[in-house]
Amino acid sequence: MNNKYANRVKGMGDGEIGEFLRLVGRGDIISFAGGIPAEDIFPIEELKSLINQLVMEKGGKLFQYGSTEGSNQLKDFIIDFMQQRMIKTKREELLITTGSQQALDLISKIFLNPGDPVLVEKPAYVGGLGAFKSYQADIRGIELGEDGPDITGLEEELARIAGQGRAVKLIYLVPDFSNPSGIRISLEKRKRILELANRYDFYLIEDTPYSELNYYDQRLPFLKELDLTERVIFLGTFSKFFVPGLRIGWVSANQEIIKILGRAKQSTDLASNSLGQELIARAGKQGLIDQQIERIKPYYRLRLEAMGTALGKYFPNWTSWSQPAGGFFYWVKLPVRIKSRDLLLRAIENKVAFVSGNSFFARAEDGNSFIRLSFSNSSPAEIEEGIKLLGKIIKDY
Amino acid sequence: MNNKYANRVKGMGDGEIGEFLRLVGRGDIISFAGGIPAEDIFPIEELKSLINQLVMEKGGKLFQYGSTEGSNQLKDFIIDFMQQRMIKTKREELLITTGSQQALDLISKIFLNPGDPVLVEKPAYVGGLGAFKSYQADIRGIELGEDGPDITGLEEELARIAGQGRAVKLIYLVPDFSNPSGIRISLEKRKRILELANRYDFYLIEDTPYSELNYYDQRLPFLKELDLTERVIFLGTFSKFFVPGLRIGWVSANQEIIKILGRAKQSTDLASNSLGQELIARAGKQGLIDQQIERIKPYYRLRLEAMGTALGKYFPNWTSWSQPAGGFFYWVKLPVRIKSRDLLLRAIENKVAFVSGNSFFARAEDGNSFIRLSFSNSSPAEIEEGIKLLGKIIKDY
Repeated sequence: MNNKYANRVKGMGDGEIGEFLRLVGRGDIISFAGGIPAEDIFPIEELKSLINQLVMEKGGKLFQYGSTEGSNQLKDFIIDFMQQRMIKTKREELLITTGSQQALDLISKIFLNPGDPVLVEKPAYVGGLGAFKSYQADIRGIELGEDGPDITGLEEELARIAGQGRAVKLIYLVPDFSNPSGIRISLEKRKRILELANRYDFYLIEDTPYSELNYYDQRLPFLKELDLTERVIFLGTFSKFFVPGLRIGWVSANQEIIKILGRAKQSTDLASNSLGQELIARAGKQGLIDQQIERIKPYYRLRLEAMGTALGKYFPNWTSWSQPAGGFFYWVKLPVRIKSRDLLLRAIENKVAFVSGNSFFARAEDGNSFIRLSFSNSSPAEIEEGIKLLGKIIKDY
Repeated sequence: MNNKYANRVKGMGDGEIGEFLRLVGRGDIISFAGGIPAEDIFPIEELKSLINQLVMEKGGKLFQYGSTEGSNQLKDFIIDFMQQRMIKTKREELLITTGSQQALDLISKIFLNPGDPVLVEKPAYVGGLGAFKSYQADIRGIELGEDGPDITGLEEELARIAGQGRAVKLIYLVPDFSNPSGIRISLEKRKRILELANRYDFYLIEDTPYSELNYYDQRLPFLKELDLTERVIFLGTFSKFFVPGLRIGWVSANQEIIKILGRAKQSTDLASNSLGQELIARAGKQGLIDQQIERIKPYYRLRLEAMGTALGKYFPNWTSWSQPAGGFFYWVKLPVRIKSRDLLLRAIENKVAFVSGNSFFARAEDGNSFIRLSFSNSSPAEIEEGIKLLGKIIKDY
C-alpha cells in the first residue's frame, strides 16, 4: 500500500459487509450471512405499476436532480408515518438520505473529531462501527443484557470519560431487535438512557431498521417519542420493511442538526436518487407500505420460528442463544474453544454461511466465540437444512 | 449553533449548490443558475420500457441490495464505453458511485488529512471545493488561461509547497469545458501536467462530466489515456449526457485505490441504488446512451449559440467572456465595481437568476466580479429574454 492515504484509512476495516454481500450472491450456498430482506416478498407488480404511473405524470422530473434535503412528497409521507408512531416531525426536521448508512456517515462527519468517544452497544451493528471508525472515533462498547445496555456500566463509562475531562457526544443504539443481538431495549431502560443523555449532555442516535419487524406484541415507544429535549437523532429506512435497493432512508432531528447534515450531504452525494424517493412517496401515499409491513410480519415470523426450532433440535446444548421477538437475527454463543472465524471456513466448505461475531465489536477478538445467523432470506426448509448442517459442523469441531 | 460539532463543519460552506437547486425549482424565474441538464430531452419513453423489461426479467433483484463495488453489468458497459474512448479498464479498476460527487467525497476521505494541500483550477467546481473543504484540505487555486491552468504558476506552487517540506497529494481538474469556466485544457498542457504529476508524485483527479458535450470538433485525449503511471483517478458520470436523477457515476483508477475507495464507500452508503445501475447498464447495452449523446449535442449547441448571440447583443462591452466549445456554461467577467452577489439579488427581483462567481473560489472574494450563466436548461427564447433582462440590470447597476 502506498503511503499517500489519510490516517483515517487505517481504521476503515477490511470490508466485512462487502464480504457478506458477496457470500449471499453465491447460489450454491445456504446463507445465513447477509442481514437482507427476502426479495420473494417484494411487491414487484405494484412497484412496476407505480413506476409507470409516475413516469406518465412526472416525465423527465423523475430522472432530474432533486434537492439535497429530499423530496417534499416523500417528507410528507414520512411525517404521516412518524405521526402514526407518535412522533411529531416536520419538513425542516427531516433529511432524506441514501440509506441510513449515509445518515451514520453524515452524523459522524458533522460531530466527530478524531479521538472523540462514541458509545455503542456491545455487540453493535457493523456499519455503525465502520462509520465511526472511519472518522477515527474512540469507540466504547456497553454490554447488552436481555433488556438492553447495562445501565450501571453505561453510567460508569460516562463518568470515567467525564473524569478525563472529555465528553461523549454520541451514543448509538438500535433499540428494537438490534443487529446482531436481536435485543430490544426495555421501556424502563429507554427512559434511563434519556435521563443520562440529559445529565451528560450527549446525543442519542436511534437507528430503527427493525422496529416495524415486531412479530408478536405491541411495539415499545421510540426514544424519539419519549425525548423532550431534542437529544434523539432518529434514523429511519425503507430497506428492511419495504425494499432496500432504492437506497432511501431518513433522519429526523432538530432543525439545526438537519441543516448541517444537509450541508454535509451536499458535498457527499448532492442528492439521493429521485426515482426511488418518488416511488416510495407514492407507495406510501397509496397505502402500499402499510400493507407491506403487515404482509411481511407473518412471513418473517415463520422463519424466525423455524430457526428457533431447528437450533433447539440440532445445536448442541453447550451453545446458547435467546429467542428474538422481531428483526432478522439469532446471536449464538459458542464455547470459547471454538473460534467463529475458523468455524466459518469449515461452514463455507460445507455450503452454509453465517457471520462471525468478530465483525460486531470495536475490538474484533471480543467476538471470537459468537456467530450471527440471519433467517430473513431463507425458506423454512433451507433453515432446517442449513441449521442441521451447521449443528453437525459445530459438534465435529 | 451548539458547540458539539466537529471542526470540519466550519469549512463546509453555506450550502450554495442547494440554493441553486432551489432557485431552479421556482417556475416564475428564468434560471441560468443550476448546471443541470434539460429534462425535456431525457429519453422518457425508452426508460419506461427498459424499466418494465428489467422488472419482468429480474423481479425482486432489481430492488435488492447490490454489492458495494457496483453492478457487474454496469461495469461491463463502462469498460466498453471507456474502451471506445481509448481507455483500457477492468472490473477491479472500477467503483460505481452515487454520482461523481460521491467519488469526490470518497477520494477526499481516503487521501486527505487536515491541512493537506490540494490544487484546483481557479475558478473550480463548487462541489469539488465543497468536498475538499469538508476534509479540511488546504486548497490552492491555479489560474486558468484560455487553454487550461497556468503551467508556470502550477510549477511554482508545487515547488513552493515542496520547499515547505510538504507534498501535494491531489490535483483536481475538469479538463473538458470546466465548470464554471467552460475552458478545455489543451493537449500540450495535459501532457505537461502529467509530467509534473510524475515529477512531484501526486494523483490527478480527472472529472469528466462535460467531456461528451463537445459540440464542434474532435475530443482531446483524456488524461487517463495519456497516463502511463496510474496517476489519474478518472471520474465519470451519467448525469449530464444521460440522466442525473438516478445518481450513478463511476471511478476508474488503479486497483489498490479502487479497493480502498470501496471500503470507504461501504461505511458511506453501502451500495448505490440497484435500479439505477441496472437501468443504465441496460440502456448502455441497447445503444440508447450512445444515441442519447448524439441527440443532445445539437440540442445544447443551439442553446450555447443562442446565449453567445444574446450576450453579444445585450451585454455592455465592458463585460467579457469566452465562447465555450462545449459543456453548459458561460463565465462572464464584470467590472470590479459590480459585486455579483448584489447583482444576483437585483436579478432575482427581476425574475432571472445565475450563480455569483464567489462560489467557485477557495477564497470567495476572488469571485466578486464574475457570474456563471448556464444555458443547458432554458429554451433559446428564454435565453434571449433572460439575457436581455440581465443585460439591462447590469447596465442599470
